[in-house]
Amino acid sequence: MKAKKELNVGMIGYGFMARTHSNAYRKVGNFFDLEYKPVLKSVCGLVEAEAEAFADRWGYESFTTDWRKVVERKDIDIIEVCVPNNYHAEIAIAAAKAGKMVICEKPLALNGPQALTMVEAVEAAGVPNLASFNYRRIPAVTMAKQLIDQGRLGKIFHYRSNFLQDWTISTEVPQGGMGTWRLDAKAAGSGVTGDLLAHCIDLALWQNGPITGVNAMTETFVKERKSVESGKMEPVGIDDACTFFCRFGNGSMGNFESTRYARGHKALFTFEINGEKASIRWDLHDLHRLQYFDHRDEGILRGWRSIHVSDGDQPYMKHWWVPGLAIGYEHSFVHQIADFLEGLATGKPVGPTFRDALATQYVCDAVLASAASGQWISPNV
Amino acid sequence: MKAKKELNVGMIGYGFMARTHSNAYRKVGNFFDLEYKPVLKSVCGLVEAEAEAFADRWGYESFTTDWRKVVERKDIDIIEVCVPNNYHAEIAIAAAKAGKMVICEKPLALNGPQALTMVEAVEAAGVPNLASFNYRRIPAVTMAKQLIDQGRLGKIFHYRSNFLQDWTISTEVPQGGMGTWRLDAKAAGSGVTGDLLAHCIDLALWQNGPITGVNAMTETFVKERKSVESGKMEPVGIDDACTFFCRFGNGSMGNFESTRYARGHKALFTFEINGEKASIRWDLHDLHRLQYFDHRDEGILRGWRSIHVSDGDQPYMKHWWVPGLAIGYEHSFVHQIADFLEGLATGKPVGPTFRDALATQYVCDAVLASAASGQWISPNV
Amino acid sequence: MKAKKELNVGMIGYGFMARTHSNAYRKVGNFFDLEYKPVLKSVCGLVEAEAEAFADRWGYESFTTDWRKVVERKDIDIIEVCVPNNYHAEIAIAAAKAGKMVICEKPLALNGPQALTMVEAVEAAGVPNLASFNYRRIPAVTMAKQLIDQGRLGKIFHYRSNFLQDWTISTEVPQGGMGTWRLDAKAAGSGVTGDLLAHCIDLALWQNGPITGVNAMTETFVKERKSVESGKMEPVGIDDACTFFCRFGNGSMGNFESTRYARGHKALFTFEINGEKASIRWDLHDLHRLQYFDHRDEGILRGWRSIHVSDGDQPYMKHWWVPGLAIGYEHSFVHQIADFLEGLATGKPVGPTFRDALATQYVCDAVLASAASGQWISPNV
Amino acid sequence: MKAKKELNVGMIGYGFMARTHSNAYRKVGNFFDLEYKPVLKSVCGLVEAEAEAFADRWGYESFTTDWRKVVERKDIDIIEVCVPNNYHAEIAIAAAKAGKMVICEKPLALNGPQALTMVEAVEAAGVPNLASFNYRRIPAVTMAKQLIDQGRLGKIFHYRSNFLQDWTISTEVPQGGMGTWRLDAKAAGSGVTGDLLAHCIDLALWQNGPITGVNAMTETFVKERKSVESGKMEPVGIDDACTFFCRFGNGSMGNFESTRYARGHKALFTFEINGEKASIRWDLHDLHRLQYFDHRDEGILRGWRSIHVSDGDQPYMKHWWVPGLAIGYEHSFVHQIADFLEGLATGKPVGPTFRDALATQYVCDAVLASAASGQWISPNV
Repeated sequence: MKAKKELNVGMIGYGFMARTHSNAYRKVGNFFDLEYKPVLKSVCGLVEAEAEAFADRWGYESFTTDWRKVVERKDIDIIEVCVPNNYHAEIAIAAAKAGKMVICEKPLALNGPQALTMVEAVEAAGVPNLASFNYRRIPAVTMAKQLIDQGRLGKIFHYRSNFLQDWTISTEVPQGGMGTWRLDAKAAGSGVTGDLLAHCIDLALWQNGPITGVNAMTETFVKERKSVESGKMEPVGIDDACTFFCRFGNGSMGNFESTRYARGHKALFTFEINGEKASIRWDLHDLHRLQYFDHRDEGILRGWRSIHVSDGDQPYMKHWWVPGLAIGYEHSFVHQIADFLEGLATGKPVGPTFRDALATQYVCDAVLASAASGQWISPNV
Repeated sequence: MKAKKELNVGMIGYGFMARTHSNAYRKVGNFFDLEYKPVLKSVCGLVEAEAEAFADRWGYESFTTDWRKVVERKDIDIIEVCVPNNYHAEIAIAAAKAGKMVICEKPLALNGPQALTMVEAVEAAGVPNLASFNYRRIPAVTMAKQLIDQGRLGKIFHYRSNFLQDWTISTEVPQGGMGTWRLDAKAAGSGVTGDLLAHCIDLALWQNGPITGVNAMTETFVKERKSVESGKMEPVGIDDACTFFCRFGNGSMGNFESTRYARGHKALFTFEINGEKASIRWDLHDLHRLQYFDHRDEGILRGWRSIHVSDGDQPYMKHWWVPGLAIGYEHSFVHQIADFLEGLATGKPVGPTFRDALATQYVCDAVLASAASGQWISPNV
Repeated sequence: MKAKKELNVGMIGYGFMARTHSNAYRKVGNFFDLEYKPVLKSVCGLVEAEAEAFADRWGYESFTTDWRKVVERKDIDIIEVCVPNNYHAEIAIAAAKAGKMVICEKPLALNGPQALTMVEAVEAAGVPNLASFNYRRIPAVTMAKQLIDQGRLGKIFHYRSNFLQDWTISTEVPQGGMGTWRLDAKAAGSGVTGDLLAHCIDLALWQNGPITGVNAMTETFVKERKSVESGKMEPVGIDDACTFFCRFGNGSMGNFESTRYARGHKALFTFEINGEKASIRWDLHDLHRLQYFDHRDEGILRGWRSIHVSDGDQPYMKHWWVPGLAIGYEHSFVHQIADFLEGLATGKPVGPTFRDALATQYVCDAVLASAASGQWISPNV
Repeated sequence: MKAKKELNVGMIGYGFMARTHSNAYRKVGNFFDLEYKPVLKSVCGLVEAEAEAFADRWGYESFTTDWRKVVERKDIDIIEVCVPNNYHAEIAIAAAKAGKMVICEKPLALNGPQALTMVEAVEAAGVPNLASFNYRRIPAVTMAKQLIDQGRLGKIFHYRSNFLQDWTISTEVPQGGMGTWRLDAKAAGSGVTGDLLAHCIDLALWQNGPITGVNAMTETFVKERKSVESGKMEPVGIDDACTFFCRFGNGSMGNFESTRYARGHKALFTFEINGEKASIRWDLHDLHRLQYFDHRDEGILRGWRSIHVSDGDQPYMKHWWVPGLAIGYEHSFVHQIADFLEGLATGKPVGPTFRDALATQYVCDAVLASAASGQWISPNV
């Protein structure tokens, strides 16, 4: 056995995303052959007892309630930023300045200008960095990207994506706090735009190239909700729903929509791309399938193929089980860290970097500005 | 305009099947270019007022309550037998003896020996004849047959078919009478075997060749039902459900099942054929789609194709609307009469003839005999 | 038998739509009990031989190449306008002035102002009138409307509809002529907006009420095509694709899209409506199914229901076959004429009237104006 | 933090199943709160270098090539039997005699009599034991069982299950060896019956009770294959395909089928249960969904519900992510070990025990005997 290089991890946060990332670090070496071996050094969270419980559950060697202590530790190689959006910039920039690699949850920041400071920090420090747009690494999604890059779709006419949920329809759902900070504009920056559309936009930019203009509308269906912090009803500052259309640099049209008021959809994240020669479609609810239509098939036998992406020659799947046996949501994070560690070994950075995430943030900013003004807006680049 | 030859129709029966056949005669000339033009001469049914109403509704020139009068009319060219199964033989044989063409609803007879007398009659008379296994002419089903005949599936390993319904679960459904004669063994001969499995078997023999042996089980879940005729509870003589497996002459295995106790399925008639190179699947509930899997597709892109059979180059569809616009159940009868009339014009008989239907009847007999004995049975041929 | 009142039909046009309407007239009496009995009196088309062939095929008593002669006939009760859009107004207005009932294909006119003159004409003449937005009468669509009207969805948050095709991707498809006049701006008025989105908008207004503002973008992917009339390459004046979002009077958000460049979709006409309590979804490719999600279902058992709309207690279906046996596209036209004739008998007009269609036309106008200006536009009302 | 009891694991085997079980042991404590904490003590396999690599990859403290050494270790609490079927009995019995708990992969043994010796051994030793029929613990499958036990389906009429694959169609696939021992009758005991139908039968007995009689047919499509051990073509002793129908003690009919020659199906493991009041259906290819039809739904709104089993109130799902985010195949093993450890803590054994697996083995034996004799056979009980 060749000795592996250890990569010491400092985890900031112990919520949902800290779980997905911790799980990925624990599993990656069981399934991927890597030069690097992650070591879970420390987890940081606000409530000491919960931080301790998290460390115990996931095997972190230590815990703390002060993220600066983690960032300052000499023996930590990488900082994971898995806290609400309003803390991303401060922590990530401090980590970069301390010479740590940084993996940051999405959206990168509250807005583009703030994201830019993060990009500048990691690039000035020259540290490897990654924004955790995990869906790029669902095997069916990765395969879609490969098909596009191989030119199989031909000229693209349409890119269509949505992310529909239904969990905030009840007026009883509060804003703020551990489970519902995504409804609090101060913590989240925006509503579905930053939380959900950011995923759609990240994939779109990756698969279909730059967006040159957007035109958007937003809505806040529930105007005030109880604040977990104040205990009082307070105005809701986020967008409950957002729809926009856009133009891509390659001439194709985009249509995007997100809401948390689409009864019946838990997490209907889909994209569909229509090209001259072929089309593809994917849906998070059945994440192991890719729908594919190829016009070059014999005429009478043309139809959408429902491809069960679970074979060894499909992206990532040789690392898992046997054909027909599906993996799930969490595996996208395992793939993400596997690719990141592979990138460290080869010296070839993997995306989405902070700079990639900045482009997504600029589109989000343009979407919100367009919704406010009723005008077409060109995103910064 | 070239004058068309008239084909004078005598319809025996005014129930569900008489409606589907009458509709077919009325529509066929609007959509198909044919030498023959059907003329609805007379309809016959038990209750005079209802026969009259039927004639009025469908444009029959006359009506009667005595089927022999129709058969005896010199000006009638073709007799349609659309009455309960126990009347098929007598009427069809009389029609053949009178020199009429005969189209008979399925199953052809109550059993094989009786069916044989019908075959002998039409063949002795030399009259064109057809058994109305209409599902052969659903475009997706017809296309499946063409794909098989072209060798696209390669060696066949498995043929699987079922016909599942749920309309007799309630013990309140009676037996006998106009709408429920299918539950009366005297009128129907058998239960799901003759009514539903006969359709499955007809397609199987047509698509996959002869069946050399069957092994079956049947069940009657509701043991007695009220008789419409007697008004009393009487033992139920039909099979409520029937399952059988079999071996085909080409070495493939068959698995068939039918029931009227499959809650949730109105008319789930399906077949699936697995070949060395490709597989196909069809389902009556979505009759306009053919599912197709081709192993020769590039590995990572293999998947079941959902083919929307509505293009002009797919069977029968050039006669209807435009791609994407579905036709329905009734159109299978229009295609049946179109093909029959085309066969008259060209002198090339179309199937399923009475002789074809006899083979199906023999398999049904073998199935019922196997269920009774618990043994493998080889059908007559 | 009670004698029926005859309704004498004059058909203007012999193309695709003339076939669907003629078929409806021929079938309606076979399946519906009506006071009125349509009589196909005359068909009119440009080429005499084709008009004669059409009359012969469908049973019209006469034919002509001059539509004015049909309109002037005393014995004609109803004029059917099944010609390219640029002829709708002239014919419909003349028919109204001659005191005829008028059924006109959609879109009603080339634009709102022209449509208004048609509305004024039929209303001044007091003649029954109908715009042939046939999809309202697909049983699953009709049932969706009933569910909404019964309040089962609760407050509506989102209305989403698209109509995606792929038949004009090839640059070889010409513009103008019999089969491709829909690509010629002079004949069609607009591209997908009038042809396809008009259907989406008609259903949306009917199901979800008035639209108060729209914001749209359009694209013409193929900039010039050969003209069937001139034989030369000419600029394309229609919109190949159109996306818009909107706000409804009830506070819900709308998202609409149409294109003829969505590879893999023959006629993917869908709508989805998300309400507080329930959601529904429909798709023309599987027109006999309604997808329904009800939040009031027990929590662990909530899921989208795939309802096979083929039972006798579902809209229109008691007139057809038995549960599980689907009808198709053409039946929506049969239902349309059945309802229209029923409306004549009861004196209660059925929609969509010309005035209903005017509202759709105004939304189309607003969509095109918004796409041109990049601004929100409020449709006329 | 309360100290957890350690449970020391000895893993026999390092193939596919050893991976699924090792992964389960590593993950279970991250997601479930348990009294017991598994410690991976030793792994045993034939080739030393591979055993070492496996130990290194999965964190086993030691490795060996002699399974007896593992069984003899005093510090081992549980023996995992993850080797080909022909070794199950010897190892499991030795482990039981040594007082170890035993978890054994399925099928339990080569046949019923051998399985009985294993049952007797674990019962004599009084050690906790489990047969690894993992599919019971896919959340959708577990929920199906709960629905049945709650009586929601009412009287059961039909149980239908199949397991279709296509990976041995090529005659080039050898028999014997590490990856293909399942094609070698000496190692596997039988073909699809023990490998695949055993899963179907385990679920059926669990969900629907005892089977009182079976009638089966089998086929071996490829008669000889190259042996990995001998390098020569040798006769194939396994069943390539097996179909059987049966009767359950509750009066319902069963229909089962398995094959490795169903082109297009990687691992189409399905079951469907039709009851008087409701029906359910599940499919491994989309394992996170349960199809459910409830006749008590309002008539016009009845349809199959596609339930995305990913909510916290659905079985096991509160331990994972958030609604809409799917888990995969491997999680069934995590649930299995979680339940087993919970059973240790509560002293309430969980199934399927070896005795449960014996019943499945007896049905498999009856199926193979019936296929050989062509007769109905009643399984031992």
